[in-house]
Amino acid sequence: MAMVSPVVYVLVFGGGFVALLFSLLLTLNVLRQDSGSEAMLRISSAIRGGAVAYLNRQYRTVAMIALALAVVIYVALHSWVLSVAFLLGAFLSALAGYIGMMVSVRANVRTAQAATKGLKAAFDVAFRGGAVTGFAVAGLGLLGVSALYFVVRDPNLLIGFGFGASLISLFARVGGGIYTKGADVGADLVGKVEKGIPEDDPRNPAVIADNVGDNVGDCAGMAADLFESYTVTIIAAMLLAWASFGAGSVSELVLPLVLCGVAVLASVAGSLFVRASSAARVWSALNRGILVSAILSAVGFFVVNALMFDHYRYFISSVIGLGVTIVIGYVTEYYTAATRKPVQQIADSAKTGPATVIIMGVAKGMESTLVPVIAIVAGAFLAYTFGGGFYGVAIAATAMLAMTAIIVAVDAYGPITDNAGGIAEMSKMPESVRAVTDPLDAVGNTTKAVTKGFAIGSAGLAALSLFAAYRELTGIEMINLYTPAVVVGLFIGGMLPFLFSSLTMRAVGRAATGMVEEVRRQFREIPGLMKGKAVPDYARCVDISTKAAIKELVLPGIIAVASPLLVGLLLGPEALGGLLAGSIVTGLLLAITMTTSGAAWDNAKKFIEAGNLGGKGSDAHKAAVVGDTVGDPFKDTSGPALNPLIKVLNTIALLAAGLIVSYHLL
Amino acid sequence: MAMVSPVVYVLVFGGGFVALLFSLLLTLNVLRQDSGSEAMLRISSAIRGGAVAYLNRQYRTVAMIALALAVVIYVALHSWVLSVAFLLGAFLSALAGYIGMMVSVRANVRTAQAATKGLKAAFDVAFRGGAVTGFAVAGLGLLGVSALYFVVRDPNLLIGFGFGASLISLFARVGGGIYTKGADVGADLVGKVEKGIPEDDPRNPAVIADNVGDNVGDCAGMAADLFESYTVTIIAAMLLAWASFGAGSVSELVLPLVLCGVAVLASVAGSLFVRASSAARVWSALNRGILVSAILSAVGFFVVNALMFDHYRYFISSVIGLGVTIVIGYVTEYYTAATRKPVQQIADSAKTGPATVIIMGVAKGMESTLVPVIAIVAGAFLAYTFGGGFYGVAIAATAMLAMTAIIVAVDAYGPITDNAGGIAEMSKMPESVRAVTDPLDAVGNTTKAVTKGFAIGSAGLAALSLFAAYRELTGIEMINLYTPAVVVGLFIGGMLPFLFSSLTMRAVGRAATGMVEEVRRQFREIPGLMKGKAVPDYARCVDISTKAAIKELVLPGIIAVASPLLVGLLLGPEALGGLLAGSIVTGLLLAITMTTSGAAWDNAKKFIEAGNLGGKGSDAHKAAVVGDTVGDPFKDTSGPALNPLIKVLNTIALLAAGLIVSYHLL
Repeated sequence: MAMVSPVVYVLVFGGGFVALLFSLLLTLNVLRQDSGSEAMLRISSAIRGGAVAYLNRQYRTVAMIALALAVVIYVALHSWVLSVAFLLGAFLSALAGYIGMMVSVRANVRTAQAATKGLKAAFDVAFRGGAVTGFAVAGLGLLGVSALYFVVRDPNLLIGFGFGASLISLFARVGGGIYTKGADVGADLVGKVEKGIPEDDPRNPAVIADNVGDNVGDCAGMAADLFESYTVTIIAAMLLAWASFGAGSVSELVLPLVLCGVAVLASVAGSLFVRASSAARVWSALNRGILVSAILSAVGFFVVNALMFDHYRYFISSVIGLGVTIVIGYVTEYYTAATRKPVQQIADSAKTGPATVIIMGVAKGMESTLVPVIAIVAGAFLAYTFGGGFYGVAIAATAMLAMTAIIVAVDAYGPITDNAGGIAEMSKMPESVRAVTDPLDAVGNTTKAVTKGFAIGSAGLAALSLFAAYRELTGIEMINLYTPAVVVGLFIGGMLPFLFSSLTMRAVGRAATGMVEEVRRQFREIPGLMKGKAVPDYARCVDISTKAAIKELVLPGIIAVASPLLVGLLLGPEALGGLLAGSIVTGLLLAITMTTSGAAWDNAKKFIEAGNLGGKGSDAHKAAVVGDTVGDPFKDTSGPALNPLIKVLNTIALLAAGLIVSYHLL
Repeated sequence: MAMVSPVVYVLVFGGGFVALLFSLLLTLNVLRQDSGSEAMLRISSAIRGGAVAYLNRQYRTVAMIALALAVVIYVALHSWVLSVAFLLGAFLSALAGYIGMMVSVRANVRTAQAATKGLKAAFDVAFRGGAVTGFAVAGLGLLGVSALYFVVRDPNLLIGFGFGASLISLFARVGGGIYTKGADVGADLVGKVEKGIPEDDPRNPAVIADNVGDNVGDCAGMAADLFESYTVTIIAAMLLAWASFGAGSVSELVLPLVLCGVAVLASVAGSLFVRASSAARVWSALNRGILVSAILSAVGFFVVNALMFDHYRYFISSVIGLGVTIVIGYVTEYYTAATRKPVQQIADSAKTGPATVIIMGVAKGMESTLVPVIAIVAGAFLAYTFGGGFYGVAIAATAMLAMTAIIVAVDAYGPITDNAGGIAEMSKMPESVRAVTDPLDAVGNTTKAVTKGFAIGSAGLAALSLFAAYRELTGIEMINLYTPAVVVGLFIGGMLPFLFSSLTMRAVGRAATGMVEEVRRQFREIPGLMKGKAVPDYARCVDISTKAAIKELVLPGIIAVASPLLVGLLLGPEALGGLLAGSIVTGLLLAITMTTSGAAWDNAKKFIEAGNLGGKGSDAHKAAVVGDTVGDPFKDTSGPALNPLIKVLNTIALLAAGLIVSYHLL
């Protein structure tokens, strides 16, 4: 391995360190900002306390599961390196989420305070706060995988790391998704519907839990999700390099790390371009940040390819990956922005009541699968053909995910502005503050949708790379659809995302019901609460959401871990390959459908609230609210949880590949 | 071919003729019944006129498309036999639907009249009317395929017949589905919601179109769907016999025909056991009919297997097929019956409003895929392993579909009782009549759901048989999931059912909107209509539904026919194989989800209307109505249309297999 050029080390470790350093500088910058009045601090520390309580409980539970699994991995696979790698992957993923959350719950109040100075100041704080998460995810992911690799020098041992990241991601997405929507729906059902008090009203006992939920769902959940996609894609690409070109092909082995190093540096530069002085320019400012990062990355990819190889196949693949990102971003924006036809059609269908809103939303969600699916398979096909086989596909996926830092930054900006608005409302700040935070929050809805589209699309390409790596690890040359066991696997794999979505959706329902009962109880039993003369027991509601989320994690977690092992051990590695393929196909389709429908309903409601079709309070608005409520678990729980599901299925298959090949029944 | 035993001819042609004869006798029996008063006849002839108008227009359109396609088939494949077979398949499918409809629209008024004499009499007429369709489908299907086969003696030439049947089925399901739900939703939105008049009120201009819709959707649509599944499964099994055992293996070649002959005779016997004297016994009477038919069929299958072969592999396969039928029937009933937990949970969620009804219904629909998917793949796997390879799978599918006569009979009973209730209401018959037809209709909802489950499950097995036959016709030994083109095909195939569902759902929306405008116009412009002093222009509404349904057929039809050809000709036969597999997986899952959710919402509403959770008019009831309305296109349009979609994709792939192998680009 003497052939690793120092330039590689510089780019990889330098990129990782710069990302973490940048994240640290942003954190210090955010913390230096004015944190506002006593009242604001009280609310923000309630949110912070709830978030910490949730993360501590979740991580405690997950830590026990992870330790147990680490033992199982050691016993089953006789490799303590794999066990340690597994724990490292889990730990770093959790750490990235933790850092992001800790800064996010401090940036919210500072954004609210900055809003008193105007939009520019507030936007700066919110974006910097979000960028902390983005660069922490990329920095920890890149450094973690690189350090581990340069120590053990064998990509096969990195699989443990990937599985650790997947597991945390599954728990963060499922738990966070159930928490956020259970609290949100519960708060709305009693507050808005029964009591007729506005959103973010401090009299609502569930209001803090709701604000905590924004952070654990959109910030920590998304961070863990993309930490996972990021690291497993790098690992899959390295595995394919190792399998296709041999252990001595250093250039191919380190290329994924180098690309990520280049892209994270480009993203630091790109994020400096994110500045907006008016509400109308916020979305284009964020977009500019992504675009500049992508262009600089592409230039860097070209240079790296030219220096390391005597052909440009991998550059082609990486550009294909960036192209898929852009197509998916555009399509998601088209289907979910209030300014576009689909959302306005959904809003229009609200004129004939809630049923037609639902039908139109589902129809639009399903329709929105067309272009992303074609973009992903066309991208994979072109990368395979012109960019060097399965390794080329993995490089395309790596290039796509190399943009993680800036994408997560843009995403994590959303919950911060959302919270800032909530804090302004609850601490009775002047109207002018909401006039700043509201448009910022509205853009946050679009960025959340677009980054979810990115998360799903990249998860699809990442899963295809893992699926290709599965071939190498099992040594099976083909998975023949004319082998009955493969068909069995394909159908079971296809069914899992349906079952999983059903479970997570119902979990939200149960969590919301528990919350409704508690909120009703407090209104009934705490005298003067409705008149604002007493303070509700926020902590109790936070606790209920926390417990519900942790409890509801178990069954989906068991299904995700057990079903590939069962199918693999019973029917063999080809059947498990069928299961993986089936789960990727329906997982991708369902995730796109659910997140698009959800975001489109949300914005259709906002479109009406902006004064169209009768405006707030009209029958059309009531119908649109129903769509929005249905969309909540679609877009924030069940849909996003499918990304980690398909990757947990794939990483566990990689981890157990040897066992399954040796010991399967049929 | 001298080896065909006369017993085979007797069973096959005898079975087919007996089915048709039985159908004819039932028709005469139904027509002999009293057709009631002048007022009833007027309404029933309006429904009949509308149904005839729709079928004529649909068949005229389809006939032109079919003639054009027959020419294309001849030009592309140089076989006039295939062209003629195609036209024959299309014609017989259309004929079966036509016969069924013609009797159904006469049985409805006679059922209403018989209801004056009590439940037993009404039930007899309704079931006999439905059985006409069932036995016409099975008789024409069996005779058509058999006659064609014994003339041409080459199963390869039967593919044209299968494609013809598929095409009609697609048009009947899509067109019928759009018609029925466009009219239903349109009638309800103005009638029930805006004007506050009850369902089936003669003042509603769309009421006749709504009743026509029940027939064209549930009767003609289901008949064409199962005619297709029935015949293509037989053809797939014969193709597999021919490919696996050679053209001389007469016993294997004719076995599928013989099994269908046996089962149709068993179904005649089984249908004689369907008698009920009280409302509570209706469902068990129908169930008994199916069960007796299944048991007698199994006995017959055993005898046939013993006479024709020196092993019992095919008997095992056929019993597996019957087993899958029973499991799917049970699961569907569990998830959709008002007496069971899932529907009651959905009803319970109506207490918190329409959004939670939708979420719970979707969750239950998704959950309901678990057992049927496992039953289908386990059945296929066992039939493959113990019942003779792919041919064994096809035999299991054949055994399942051999029950078509009795299943369609039970299904077609539904729209007759539904119509009978409508006629009773519109012609102001005494309350006692509705007291008879209402419980009959309620059972009809369950039978519709269960037979849809059967249609989907059997379509799944049928499609797997077609997929196996595709291997033989293309000569490709494997479809490797590690070939990029196959992955491309798999994803595109998986996406098609989503796109297709989106298109059909939106088509219903457009059809309903057109209807709403017309109904509003009539209430506005026809003086005295609301007071019942003027007769609405029923024919105009019928015409609007007809035109909308025919117009909306085109795009889904083009996508279904063009996409397999495009993928096959561009990316080759393996990619097309991937497309077929992908479409079967997601088609099956989406169809189960949508039809289960729809039926469960419908019955949750009925559960509340029966006086639970606040009963009719309560907020819970209003919320449940929203679920029911969303469920309408799910269960009656988009969901059922996926069966013919996956089979059209498969039969066109079979038809074009030779071309694609010779001329594909990559």
